[in-house]
Amino acid sequence: MNLNPIFYPESIAVIGASPNPNRPGNIALKALVESNFNGRIYPVNPNYSEILGFKCYPDVLSIPESIDLAIITIPTYMILNSLKACVLKGVKGVVIVTAGFSEAGEKGAALEAELVKAINGSSTRIIGPNCMGIYCSYSGVSYAPDLPRIKGETSFISQSGGLGIAFASLLSSRGYGLSKIVSSGNECDLKFVDYLEYLEGDDTTCVIGGYIEQIRNPRKFINVARRVSPLKPLVLWKAGIHESGRKAVYSHTGALAGSDEIYNAVFKQVGAIRAYSLRNLVNYIIASLTIPDFRGINIAVVTGPGGVGVSIVDACEAVGFRIPELCMETRRRLREALPWFASVSNPIDMTLAVVEDIKLYSECVKIVMEDGGVDAVIIGAPGLFRVGEFTDLMIRLKNDVWKPFIIVWSFMRSDIEEAFKRLGEAKIPVYFMPEDAAKSLIAIKKYVEYRDRFKSIL
Amino acid sequence: MNLNPIFYPESIAVIGASPNPNRPGNIALKALVESNFNGRIYPVNPNYSEILGFKCYPDVLSIPESIDLAIITIPTYMILNSLKACVLKGVKGVVIVTAGFSEAGEKGAALEAELVKAINGSSTRIIGPNCMGIYCSYSGVSYAPDLPRIKGETSFISQSGGLGIAFASLLSSRGYGLSKIVSSGNECDLKFVDYLEYLEGDDTTCVIGGYIEQIRNPRKFINVARRVSPLKPLVLWKAGIHESGRKAVYSHTGALAGSDEIYNAVFKQVGAIRAYSLRNLVNYIIASLTIPDFRGINIAVVTGPGGVGVSIVDACEAVGFRIPELCMETRRRLREALPWFASVSNPIDMTLAVVEDIKLYSECVKIVMEDGGVDAVIIGAPGLFRVGEFTDLMIRLKNDVWKPFIIVWSFMRSDIEEAFKRLGEAKIPVYFMPEDAAKSLIAIKKYVEYRDRFKSIL
Repeated sequence: MNLNPIFYPESIAVIGASPNPNRPGNIALKALVESNFNGRIYPVNPNYSEILGFKCYPDVLSIPESIDLAIITIPTYMILNSLKACVLKGVKGVVIVTAGFSEAGEKGAALEAELVKAINGSSTRIIGPNCMGIYCSYSGVSYAPDLPRIKGETSFISQSGGLGIAFASLLSSRGYGLSKIVSSGNECDLKFVDYLEYLEGDDTTCVIGGYIEQIRNPRKFINVARRVSPLKPLVLWKAGIHESGRKAVYSHTGALAGSDEIYNAVFKQVGAIRAYSLRNLVNYIIASLTIPDFRGINIAVVTGPGGVGVSIVDACEAVGFRIPELCMETRRRLREALPWFASVSNPIDMTLAVVEDIKLYSECVKIVMEDGGVDAVIIGAPGLFRVGEFTDLMIRLKNDVWKPFIIVWSFMRSDIEEAFKRLGEAKIPVYFMPEDAAKSLIAIKKYVEYRDRFKSIL
Repeated sequence: MNLNPIFYPESIAVIGASPNPNRPGNIALKALVESNFNGRIYPVNPNYSEILGFKCYPDVLSIPESIDLAIITIPTYMILNSLKACVLKGVKGVVIVTAGFSEAGEKGAALEAELVKAINGSSTRIIGPNCMGIYCSYSGVSYAPDLPRIKGETSFISQSGGLGIAFASLLSSRGYGLSKIVSSGNECDLKFVDYLEYLEGDDTTCVIGGYIEQIRNPRKFINVARRVSPLKPLVLWKAGIHESGRKAVYSHTGALAGSDEIYNAVFKQVGAIRAYSLRNLVNYIIASLTIPDFRGINIAVVTGPGGVGVSIVDACEAVGFRIPELCMETRRRLREALPWFASVSNPIDMTLAVVEDIKLYSECVKIVMEDGGVDAVIIGAPGLFRVGEFTDLMIRLKNDVWKPFIIVWSFMRSDIEEAFKRLGEAKIPVYFMPEDAAKSLIAIKKYVEYRDRFKSIL
């Protein structure tokens, strides 16, 4: 499905634009300005002649040029007329931000049916209603003034606009940018699967995340997702698992949450990576971006001072990884490199010796990687010591080795946040907690196994 | 057990002090200087006459004054003599940082036995060996230069020094200070339970966290923990759960990890809150500090824009909370306060209306709290919008209500980190993820139920 005019519009009308900084129509306009949208912007509001420095029009039909995307923020009962004007004008995509449709009961559902009728037979498509809309870092379309603006290769389809913002803020804090976000709302016209199909062909999207309350057309979803997932990892978080959660979904976007077991079966069948929380989602996306081909089972753990090694081992075994004994030659070489009281069994504890000689981290990781019985190494970062030097060392290490390594860094301080960003930019996976690392690794491993099977069938 | 001379020493000797910034003896000295220890500091090293501006002594016996605490960082084989000198000198506590004892095999275990023999019959106690030592925000004793230095009411006993630092950095990033940290190492003399007994009587400690690889004297531990836990919540993280994890524990601090089921039974019996990760540990400590009397089962969820409400409901139900329907009167009042398309069923979705009127957050929470069927409210924060105003509003709200409320704020940005700190300082629980909030609430609820039963027996 070609949604290019929606994601890369040349002109946008903001219907309901307002100079009041707390009105949705003002926020929508400001979002475009702040994300440097470089197409034409047309505020629409009969009460103003100019808003935020842009000439303002009384209605969309009075705009002298053609419009690709319209963003509607006016009250519910006024929307149908406004939408009809957009259809007349030949607008390609209409984002309806306003709520009060199928999620708000029967009256709203009837209104929503009217919207669908209004675009029938036209080339106008609806995003929403009850949504936030579209974000694209490459074109500068945006739905929130504060959305981080780093370009990247991840796109996110969300049946919640707020989560789109949360997702973007979490990824950017880890050094990763975004390509696109869609807040799809009630999906009266364009649905999750339509956006998925568009992203399938989008060159700047390599990994796709999704927040799902309901898949509205499962058959098409299965077909498209099965086609997409071997090429672009698909990390999906399904919410509304429990009884009240399902009710909450209904009042949120008018969706029927459906049985959790069915979703599990569908996700498995299409090779999607299933996330159970926003934290999972972000962690698995990061793994998809940094270690997309991870297949191993045998993990070596290399740490400096302090019990992190034990908890990394616990977390790895909890998800099914093995912590194998190292071979004699590896242990001999580690023994040479480390003080006599260090532990050269797996997990390797280099002890406080690394505080004196930070290079031991990369030396020992290299030795361990040459052990044929080791598929990947998890490194416990040295806490608050020598943060910048350790980060430099890891970035250099990445160029020297061919097996994957993952860093666990369970500390919070501003320089460590900076280190997380730098490691992310260098595509080195780093996680706060051992369980984050272990769960991400096993999720990717299972995905790669699916992909391998899928390819062997072709 | 009175360990006051160890936590509040008037004089400290750093044996093995060094001017080389990467040596443990330099780090130990710098830690004391940077944490403003205001007692007397005596570096000991025969090769220098002065280090970091302090007069340096060739050995501990040549120091002209009495010494409360000695920190030993010299090589393993030199330690026994140095310890004997400390005993002669009448030093009260000796922190042995150096590794290479029982965790490093038979030879090391024999050396460790010698240490214990050396203090036999004396008033000298050993902390460690193979540990980092003591931190006390009130006296300025510290074992790492970068440890945050906010005073607080939480103390932490850790069989890993590195985790002590991680714990401190995480708590301080959330606005909470610390009273004391002990890195207890191999525990050849003073053991986990001895520190616990000391903290029982420590006025500046209200909540106690622990990282446990092995309880070395379970009978005494059960007695002391049972006495402490009804008065000071005890949040314990036991590591070394799986097979390799247990081996890792042995090579880390020479401990035998023991069966996980036994620990589970013991923790239950003594009323400890069990954590399964560092994240759990920090989250449960924060709940202990902010909602120490939480007993409820019925949760109302109040959110602004976006699917967070659904995932909060999912997380609450997953741990056993109920999301009850609100009574007619509550719904009527919410309907009056909110736009017609908002959802006034639990979870309450105030929609984008809160962007226009941020005060709706506190108004709706107050209305919901007056519903007799609601025990607590979880609030989904408004993402990146109006961060400071929302924080102010919540701090004011705390003074106006008597039921607990918890905030979920799944966003990362520097101003939100600042908000987390401010909310922490105001003792308002705020969590990144719905699952963090739900797990913390249920952990506290179970603890309070234990405490209630315990008190009813007395």
